[in-house]
Amino acid sequence: MTQEFFSLLQGAPCSREKISYNFSSILLIFIPTMKRPMKHLSTILILFYTALFAQPTQDSLAIRAIYDAALVNGKSYEMLGELCRVAPKRLSGSPGAAAAVEWGQLTMTALGFDSVWLQPVMVPRWVRGNKEYAKLITRHIGGQELTICSLGGSVPTPEGGITSQVIEIHTFEELRDMPDEKVKGKIVFFNRPMDPKLIYTFGAYGGCVGQRAYGADEASAKGAMACVVRSMTLANDDHPHTGSVSYKNVHAKIPAVAISTQDADYLSALLKIEADLSLHIETNCNTLPDVLSYNVIGEIKGSELPNEYLLAGGHLDAWDKGEGAHDDGAGCVHAMEALRIMRASGYKPKRTLRAVLFMNEENGLKGALKYAELAEQHQEKHLACIESDRGGFSPRGFHMEASGDTLKTLQSYQDLLEPYGLHLWQTGGSGADISPLRGKSLLIGMVPDSQRYFDHHHADTDIFANVHKRELELGSASIAALLYLLDKYGVPK
Amino acid sequence: MTQEFFSLLQGAPCSREKISYNFSSILLIFIPTMKRPMKHLSTILILFYTALFAQPTQDSLAIRAIYDAALVNGKSYEMLGELCRVAPKRLSGSPGAAAAVEWGQLTMTALGFDSVWLQPVMVPRWVRGNKEYAKLITRHIGGQELTICSLGGSVPTPEGGITSQVIEIHTFEELRDMPDEKVKGKIVFFNRPMDPKLIYTFGAYGGCVGQRAYGADEASAKGAMACVVRSMTLANDDHPHTGSVSYKNVHAKIPAVAISTQDADYLSALLKIEADLSLHIETNCNTLPDVLSYNVIGEIKGSELPNEYLLAGGHLDAWDKGEGAHDDGAGCVHAMEALRIMRASGYKPKRTLRAVLFMNEENGLKGALKYAELAEQHQEKHLACIESDRGGFSPRGFHMEASGDTLKTLQSYQDLLEPYGLHLWQTGGSGADISPLRGKSLLIGMVPDSQRYFDHHHADTDIFANVHKRELELGSASIAALLYLLDKYGVPK
Repeated sequence: MTQEFFSLLQGAPCSREKISYNFSSILLIFIPTMKRPMKHLSTILILFYTALFAQPTQDSLAIRAIYDAALVNGKSYEMLGELCRVAPKRLSGSPGAAAAVEWGQLTMTALGFDSVWLQPVMVPRWVRGNKEYAKLITRHIGGQELTICSLGGSVPTPEGGITSQVIEIHTFEELRDMPDEKVKGKIVFFNRPMDPKLIYTFGAYGGCVGQRAYGADEASAKGAMACVVRSMTLANDDHPHTGSVSYKNVHAKIPAVAISTQDADYLSALLKIEADLSLHIETNCNTLPDVLSYNVIGEIKGSELPNEYLLAGGHLDAWDKGEGAHDDGAGCVHAMEALRIMRASGYKPKRTLRAVLFMNEENGLKGALKYAELAEQHQEKHLACIESDRGGFSPRGFHMEASGDTLKTLQSYQDLLEPYGLHLWQTGGSGADISPLRGKSLLIGMVPDSQRYFDHHHADTDIFANVHKRELELGSASIAALLYLLDKYGVPK
Repeated sequence: MTQEFFSLLQGAPCSREKISYNFSSILLIFIPTMKRPMKHLSTILILFYTALFAQPTQDSLAIRAIYDAALVNGKSYEMLGELCRVAPKRLSGSPGAAAAVEWGQLTMTALGFDSVWLQPVMVPRWVRGNKEYAKLITRHIGGQELTICSLGGSVPTPEGGITSQVIEIHTFEELRDMPDEKVKGKIVFFNRPMDPKLIYTFGAYGGCVGQRAYGADEASAKGAMACVVRSMTLANDDHPHTGSVSYKNVHAKIPAVAISTQDADYLSALLKIEADLSLHIETNCNTLPDVLSYNVIGEIKGSELPNEYLLAGGHLDAWDKGEGAHDDGAGCVHAMEALRIMRASGYKPKRTLRAVLFMNEENGLKGALKYAELAEQHQEKHLACIESDRGGFSPRGFHMEASGDTLKTLQSYQDLLEPYGLHLWQTGGSGADISPLRGKSLLIGMVPDSQRYFDHHHADTDIFANVHKRELELGSASIAALLYLLDKYGVPK
């Protein structure tokens, strides 16, 4: 589009945004671009009415100041770039995770928070190894390599690898109904795609992540030697997406690997031609002893109710494929920047604000459990916790674990925040890291647009270059704006 | 994030989405992942309540079917890829535009629309030429090249170029207040940035596009020899963004070029050190005689009221920098796909549906004017027109040039479409191509998320690779869903 007067019209309807046009300059640009006499000037002027005469309130001005601080000279993008550069690979217990802890502590100290400290916690240490190899053995097309990656927590294959026939499965029911002898000694290929019909992509993820988490156990129960899982993404891409596999100890632990959606479709098509094709898989991932690591916490002390806490958090650990930019570097930066811009906007919080960078969300949740344990031990009253762990995309609102008056109060903030694109004020799950505080605190999850999240989730493409500056900044501001309202008005029981 | 039970929770709140979980499978995945006894099962179960017991209506089912058709085996992405491949450079009157017309006609014919035809229209033909050169002449750093591009419609420099001192300007008022002798013979550098504080980026565009459109005229009125304009983007990038310049014939036409935001900041910083630095600019763009081109129209005949039209449209021409992927290949594909999926979903429209690919939106609007002229001539009753010309990003709603009962009726559709992310149902400008039908038809503009639009607008990066498949598909479905409601219920006066 290029017609200038439309840009002006299009800018108008965000009625609560600060309107910096003056009327004469609008007309100045408007009139000369009209292609024909202005027959409908009155109609068009009505469109500006709301914009021009909306009265700002103290809250709307405070929130405007918060957004301004995020969008003009904001630090979200710069901080995330730095984290992705100094600690791109930061799975729990790794040297990268240690570097990330140091970065978090140094950065929050440099931001001038009232106190910054580390919370020690023992975390699991799983290493990918240097061998992730898979080769098809078929009569029709000869040997062909597939790109695989071990699922996090997987056992390795025996040295020399596993070679066996592949059997394709879509649901656990289908597998359970199968005679054991059809599965025994084989490699089970779980190929249930995410459902593209679900608008909110986390629903589609929830609908099939079970095959990644529990597929190995289910296959092992039927005597399989290994399992191969279709990557959890809606994208038609050529790289595997990792994620954790969970062994429940009732059966033998078998190796579990992911393949890309393109390879999954290819393998499935080949199986239709040659039902008894085989796969050779070789991996040497390993679980090492637990390692001492840390949650990183920064705090701005409250002026009136310092013993009431408002928490914003994300997780500092990340899978070792990309740089953990969206998952969950974005969430860490959202939390840190939310506190910074609240202060930069001139607001003095009554309650104590905490930015918490949790360790070990991806494969253990040890940091979250430790945080909740210590909060309980120190009898810290957490009024509300906001988690950001759904990427650094354009924010659309909040999922709240709330009902009754609490929910009503939160939803009453919608009018103030809709002009900033926050339209979702729904009951819903908050986030893994704050979940151990359930029942002790109001829990809220920030919800960005979900369309692109699983393109990058746990994959090589979860890198800083795939994060958009303004989208990230808007997330920080959205959390800060809600923290402001929670701080100012508290949380009704 | 990785905790599976959160994914399920997170999937729940889109209450009107088709819920494909059954309850036992939710619990199956849910229970084993809990880290502690389920003290709060009842609270969590409440979250599922709405999802499980929402009753679908005929409209919600029809809309669901439309979205399914867009998201499963949709053609939006494939069609846009093809357009960008066969006609990436398609400025009005160019061979690329001719190829795009052919593509539009062939594609809509292949989609099986009831009729597909071309609407002849004479359009301007401006060519960039092969010389776009700029070099700084300074005492401190020696000669240094800047990357420039001519603004569309600009006159060229004289052969051998223009070399003159640069004067930086931020507003027309500042320029007008200046004594003529300070401007005479110089190159005026318009350096007003887009305002990052505006959430809806089209507002920020509207706030400073005047310097691109009318800067040359304003500078010429003060005797300047040329003008250089900061690119209209919020991104800190290194490539110039083009767009049209408008000469009003009262002064001499002077050459107008864009520089990147990075170069604008650099030039501005240099001017602070060396106020009398000069710039050498050389371009050989040119305006050729008008050329015969076409709007491309595809139609599905209405079964009951075939003489009432519902139009979905975008513009087929695009600036010659990228591939016109977001501006406005996306809009063309949205319109075509909207009609296709309405039919694919099994809906039989009462009224006649038209997909219109307008020619020459970028530098003349000749196609739009021709379309309106012929609609008037043939007394075609256009009930409503929906334009998509703000990119192929995640749709957020609609701007409607409506009031009273019409507006109320449209806003009553919000409940049906909110589950698909359409929360904006506001008065606002629709789009340039349907604007000549103002007063004769209800006009609506689709509004996608605006954060990334101006990164690519009129620039080298407006390419297919920067379009997201699902975001594009959701746009097509959103237009189709609104067309469905407009067709079924009509438009109240």
